[in-house]
Amino acid sequence: MARINEHYQKLRAGYLFPEIGRRVAAFAGAHPDARIIRLGIGDVTLPLAPALVAAAEMGSAAGFRGYGPENGYDFLLDAIRAHDYAARGVEIARDEIFVSDGSKQDSGNIQEIFGADCRIAVTDPVYPVYVDTNVMAGRTGPAGADGRYAGIVYLPAREANGFMPGPPEQRVDIAYLCSPNNPTGAVASRENLAAWVRWARAHDAVLLFDAAYDAFIQDPALPRSIYEIEGADACAIEMRSFSKRAGFTGVRCAYTVVPKALTGSSASGKRVALNGLWARRHATKFNSVPYVVQRAAAAVFSDEGRVQTGEQVAYYMANAAALRAGLGAAGLRCFGGEHAPYVWVKSPDGLSSWDCFDTLLTEAHVVCTPGAGFGAAGEGYVRISAFNSRENVDEAIARIRKAVGA
Amino acid sequence: MARINEHYQKLRAGYLFPEIGRRVAAFAGAHPDARIIRLGIGDVTLPLAPALVAAAEMGSAAGFRGYGPENGYDFLLDAIRAHDYAARGVEIARDEIFVSDGSKQDSGNIQEIFGADCRIAVTDPVYPVYVDTNVMAGRTGPAGADGRYAGIVYLPAREANGFMPGPPEQRVDIAYLCSPNNPTGAVASRENLAAWVRWARAHDAVLLFDAAYDAFIQDPALPRSIYEIEGADACAIEMRSFSKRAGFTGVRCAYTVVPKALTGSSASGKRVALNGLWARRHATKFNSVPYVVQRAAAAVFSDEGRVQTGEQVAYYMANAAALRAGLGAAGLRCFGGEHAPYVWVKSPDGLSSWDCFDTLLTEAHVVCTPGAGFGAAGEGYVRISAFNSRENVDEAIARIRKAVGA
Repeated sequence: MARINEHYQKLRAGYLFPEIGRRVAAFAGAHPDARIIRLGIGDVTLPLAPALVAAAEMGSAAGFRGYGPENGYDFLLDAIRAHDYAARGVEIARDEIFVSDGSKQDSGNIQEIFGADCRIAVTDPVYPVYVDTNVMAGRTGPAGADGRYAGIVYLPAREANGFMPGPPEQRVDIAYLCSPNNPTGAVASRENLAAWVRWARAHDAVLLFDAAYDAFIQDPALPRSIYEIEGADACAIEMRSFSKRAGFTGVRCAYTVVPKALTGSSASGKRVALNGLWARRHATKFNSVPYVVQRAAAAVFSDEGRVQTGEQVAYYMANAAALRAGLGAAGLRCFGGEHAPYVWVKSPDGLSSWDCFDTLLTEAHVVCTPGAGFGAAGEGYVRISAFNSRENVDEAIARIRKAVGA
Repeated sequence: MARINEHYQKLRAGYLFPEIGRRVAAFAGAHPDARIIRLGIGDVTLPLAPALVAAAEMGSAAGFRGYGPENGYDFLLDAIRAHDYAARGVEIARDEIFVSDGSKQDSGNIQEIFGADCRIAVTDPVYPVYVDTNVMAGRTGPAGADGRYAGIVYLPAREANGFMPGPPEQRVDIAYLCSPNNPTGAVASRENLAAWVRWARAHDAVLLFDAAYDAFIQDPALPRSIYEIEGADACAIEMRSFSKRAGFTGVRCAYTVVPKALTGSSASGKRVALNGLWARRHATKFNSVPYVVQRAAAAVFSDEGRVQTGEQVAYYMANAAALRAGLGAAGLRCFGGEHAPYVWVKSPDGLSSWDCFDTLLTEAHVVCTPGAGFGAAGEGYVRISAFNSRENVDEAIARIRKAVGA
């Protein structure tokens, strides 16, 4: 008798974004004339930069490629090493980088190399994939009334701690961090990350650092990689993505760095390199990113590619600034959006996240993401994305102001 | 303390193909003048058919797309339904199809939706991903001296059973089947599959049917889908790939069908639809196949696409016929290669698989795949792939004949 993975039964409702999709579709069906502006799911809207399209098309026309090297082509690995790391004073080897088809996949799969009894910590609110994949793997008990799963340590990100909680007091083996943060838009300072690295080193814990939004950091003094912090190579795995920095949400390319200095403990107490475990997982369950996609990703680092994708990031960040200013002027309390493409907005009048979502959808025809969908501490907030045209963002601001009576 | 997933420690040596890569690289390094012909890894060599390139390039130029629908675009789902199923008398709904980036991924990930205590069966020799992913998930004990993992039921595929073993005698909950078979090149008859379906229905077991090579079946009377067998929709998951049928090994597109009639049992005895579990996994850990890739995959089903990819399949199958004829005339015993792009060759003179591999590499400068790398029952065989130019295949045949003294 084929028994199912019982842990899946613990998962609450559907994954957040499909649920939003269902509500929006229902509203759109009932109101076919409404011109809905989508600032919910963090999907880019600008087309691929010309330098990237040229690279991809040249690739598909000029030379056929079959199976690629499992960890990525050297031309891409070397571009990553030079531009994302050496340029910031960090030395990363080719075989410490694993090119993949997305940070969602990487951040969901990375838990597989750890023991079933590891205790994990997440900040709250949090990207749901970190939590759900640990539930599926059986590292938690059932969810409580507040949606929190037994066995996971939740670290609330609140206004009082600048939406950037520090390390936990209790025993934790693995902590997920995300900066610039999805969903709050907060960014970690060098001191924030140094505190986490000190804690991880002291407790033999591993940090899973999701830097999918690093390109949106505006202040060059802020760390873009956790490896800019001394000692992080012995305690941290880092994930980066081309999705938002280069409009790759529908193109699919990301990478994960697992330093060779990083180890976990076997049951017998032996130290085991996590790089080797992840390499084995990658070789067994993955089969390289399309060649033309890797060509396009490498073109992100070309002179034109950096200029063009930089202009796209600036475009979205101007949207974020407009959202902060416009919604702030309407009396809404806004956070984030300064080094991230997300603005974290306090629901007006004490509305719950989903009530605020429904209000914005039905009154302003604007789709946001309810903060409660990211965790209990997200209750009372919504996430508004800067990924849209400036025209739509301005229109959304005007409609929201009207809806909240400003 | 971050404990590792202890099950990874049970895995034997590296994944097969990287090991072959290392041996070939070592030989090539020592013999820089050798013109090595690669008939090992099953990677295609013909470039993408023109109709597919046109579709993909038009896609990237004409319209940008961000995140796609998690299960695939309707244009691709409908093309699959019409051409791969309705044309063979099988009705499959859109939401029973899950488009992915590869059958390696799907066949590796599918085990996640089942309980940790499920007992699995594989034919032997077998595509290593089925086994290794179950080892990683903790469904086995350690490997024995013959490489077989405790707890897995191995069903030997031998000359005596036409390399197509029937269902097991002992309790098994999940069985992996692959037809046309990788590595043996054998193909399941309608009667073979009907026996498996009867067994699965009688024992409440699930069949994981890998049909990645269905396009190579030459006899239209042979089943291409397990759903051509009555009752299979209540006991089987099917995986198909564009890799070999359309040269997508480096492009990456495949799909998995999970019928809504198919259920597993929860611990409390409740029936749970596997479609819903896989949908949840797909939505949580995957993020759609690149739009341009789905466009190219849909073009496989266009009039020109079917003609052009059909010509490519015929080209490879002519290679397979040449290999069977040429190596057979040299006194080598050959199996498969009639409905599959692989020829399964008995090592001459009682050589072990790896000794035969080394002999072909060093004497004929031809790379094959050692049968023992696919399981204990593959010992004494090698797999020779038809994926190469006709010129290289003919040259390889001549060299092998010389090396074996024919």
